[in-house]
Amino acid sequence: MTDPTRYPAALLAEACQSKLVTAGALQEDAAETVRALIQASRLGTDSHGVRLIGYYVDMLTNGGVRKRPVRRFEQTAPATGRLDADSGLGHPAAYQATEEAVRLARHAGIGAVTVRHSTHYGAGGVYALEAAKQGFVSLVLSNSDPAVALAGGRTPFHGTNPIAMSAPVRLGKPWLLDMATSSIPFNRVKLYRSLDLPLPPEVALNEEGHPTLDAEQARFLQPLGGMAYGHKGAALAGMVTILSAVLAGADPDPVMISTAEAQSGPTPQNVGHTMVAFDPARFVGQEAFEIGMEQYLALLRTSPAAEQGVPVCAPGDKEWAEAAKRDEHGIPVDPDTERFLDLR
Amino acid sequence: MTDPTRYPAALLAEACQSKLVTAGALQEDAAETVRALIQASRLGTDSHGVRLIGYYVDMLTNGGVRKRPVRRFEQTAPATGRLDADSGLGHPAAYQATEEAVRLARHAGIGAVTVRHSTHYGAGGVYALEAAKQGFVSLVLSNSDPAVALAGGRTPFHGTNPIAMSAPVRLGKPWLLDMATSSIPFNRVKLYRSLDLPLPPEVALNEEGHPTLDAEQARFLQPLGGMAYGHKGAALAGMVTILSAVLAGADPDPVMISTAEAQSGPTPQNVGHTMVAFDPARFVGQEAFEIGMEQYLALLRTSPAAEQGVPVCAPGDKEWAEAAKRDEHGIPVDPDTERFLDLR
Repeated sequence: MTDPTRYPAALLAEACQSKLVTAGALQEDAAETVRALIQASRLGTDSHGVRLIGYYVDMLTNGGVRKRPVRRFEQTAPATGRLDADSGLGHPAAYQATEEAVRLARHAGIGAVTVRHSTHYGAGGVYALEAAKQGFVSLVLSNSDPAVALAGGRTPFHGTNPIAMSAPVRLGKPWLLDMATSSIPFNRVKLYRSLDLPLPPEVALNEEGHPTLDAEQARFLQPLGGMAYGHKGAALAGMVTILSAVLAGADPDPVMISTAEAQSGPTPQNVGHTMVAFDPARFVGQEAFEIGMEQYLALLRTSPAAEQGVPVCAPGDKEWAEAAKRDEHGIPVDPDTERFLDLR
Repeated sequence: MTDPTRYPAALLAEACQSKLVTAGALQEDAAETVRALIQASRLGTDSHGVRLIGYYVDMLTNGGVRKRPVRRFEQTAPATGRLDADSGLGHPAAYQATEEAVRLARHAGIGAVTVRHSTHYGAGGVYALEAAKQGFVSLVLSNSDPAVALAGGRTPFHGTNPIAMSAPVRLGKPWLLDMATSSIPFNRVKLYRSLDLPLPPEVALNEEGHPTLDAEQARFLQPLGGMAYGHKGAALAGMVTILSAVLAGADPDPVMISTAEAQSGPTPQNVGHTMVAFDPARFVGQEAFEIGMEQYLALLRTSPAAEQGVPVCAPGDKEWAEAAKRDEHGIPVDPDTERFLDLR
């Protein structure tokens, strides 16, 4: 296997924008979607980056995403609001909700916005980062279609329900977490299939809901924590469902139509998100927070490593290192996506 | 081993109150502490219930907890505030912060209060529940002294940093999550020691920071996710540290003095908490939220079980069943605590 070809972000952005607009998306919605995809790709989150362009184009074409949505934001109290995304692309809705949460937090100290009637928004960390760039600690949650078993269950119930969070760091890149509440995403199962390798233990279940190491047989995922502690991963997934879907009025994961169904149309998913922004100035104070983050991160990065030469990392450290590399050398693109974007 | 003797909650409350007041606590602070301990014990969380009474008495006696603290709450914005707990008992501070978060949320839609200079507050679920009883979705976080390795680390760094959350349920008991971000708490290691049993794999490390199954050799814990996915548990612990300690101005876990040191005095820990309350009425709306929770929980509880006869549970279900049992038959008390409380 040769290394994938690398392309400058600007070139990929232009190619993605063109595909989305041709599929019927509004120029400005396409631009926001591209911004999110490129940011995810820059950070090395290829599973949620430009690779997904074909998926969004399919949804626009087949009706799983509305081409010309009319998003409606309503402030409901000094610190809260709700956004109806009108089944449009999830990315512009997620950026808008994040902006509104930050706006509310500037005045009220904290701001929270829920989103309903949204669709797949890519990588939540991208939006969390947007708030951190403006000086806010952020929490970004989204539910998704059923793919993960409950502890003690034998069918897909929760989505992979990622938790994203970011915190600003003075003179440094933000602390950045973006993690599924399953041990691995289903994309990883597909990777093991293509490599013809056995799965790690306690990450996936077969059609009958039994644990399997056979990637071909794997149908859905186990929650973080595996057989013994999966009740914790499942509870975290439930936390995400309640905060981002039940609170928002979106579909709870177990009744959400599948990603595959949404891709072939014509019915959009009703995905929910929640964005929360905290203003550090209204808690410990701006400067004390900055000093506190620096102290915490310095302690973490200098703490003794289990393996010599493999320093301990904070969430986001690897992503920022990858972004620096990709900003210099370009973003690697897999052959299927290259073809889809007419790059070769 | 005979079953521990059971006692009515009221009798235990009286005995605990008397011990705390004799140790110098203010009557009202003692009453709040007892309320939290009894609630944890009712719910079956014995590790954080009345069993801890001797620990709090030691701290009051030796200086790890200030006897007559002057708590200062300051509202900093329409939706936020901060509480300085003045090194008093953590429980009254946690109840007060929860009440203030709810009060702020009534007006602003969401409310968040951080607490600094606090001490060990017992079980976070108790406070989350307090907000849920008043109709609010709540998130309660606290950091703690170093006890859990980083992924790729070989020393204790984060605390067990529990995440607690509760959501109100119409005509039912609240959804209730209270989980450490390690696979097991250190108390569990002690239990395996006393039973002379090997530990489960990937939960604990020895003095040198190597994984061990030997409970006698275990010195600290691995994050949730074990060897392969411990980066997720460690990231969740970091999320709790940032939101509850850095944002609050409390000590980050790795520099917090140990529980044992606080118990022998004279220096209090500087623990941080964060309480967030969301008003469902300001998001999807009160009635829609209630219907949504009922739908979600019905789907969960009727979803197919892996093992016949072992129905799938929501977080809190087991705790509420235990509370019903204990309300009828009393709270079981271990012999050491019985003696400490002069019950035998």
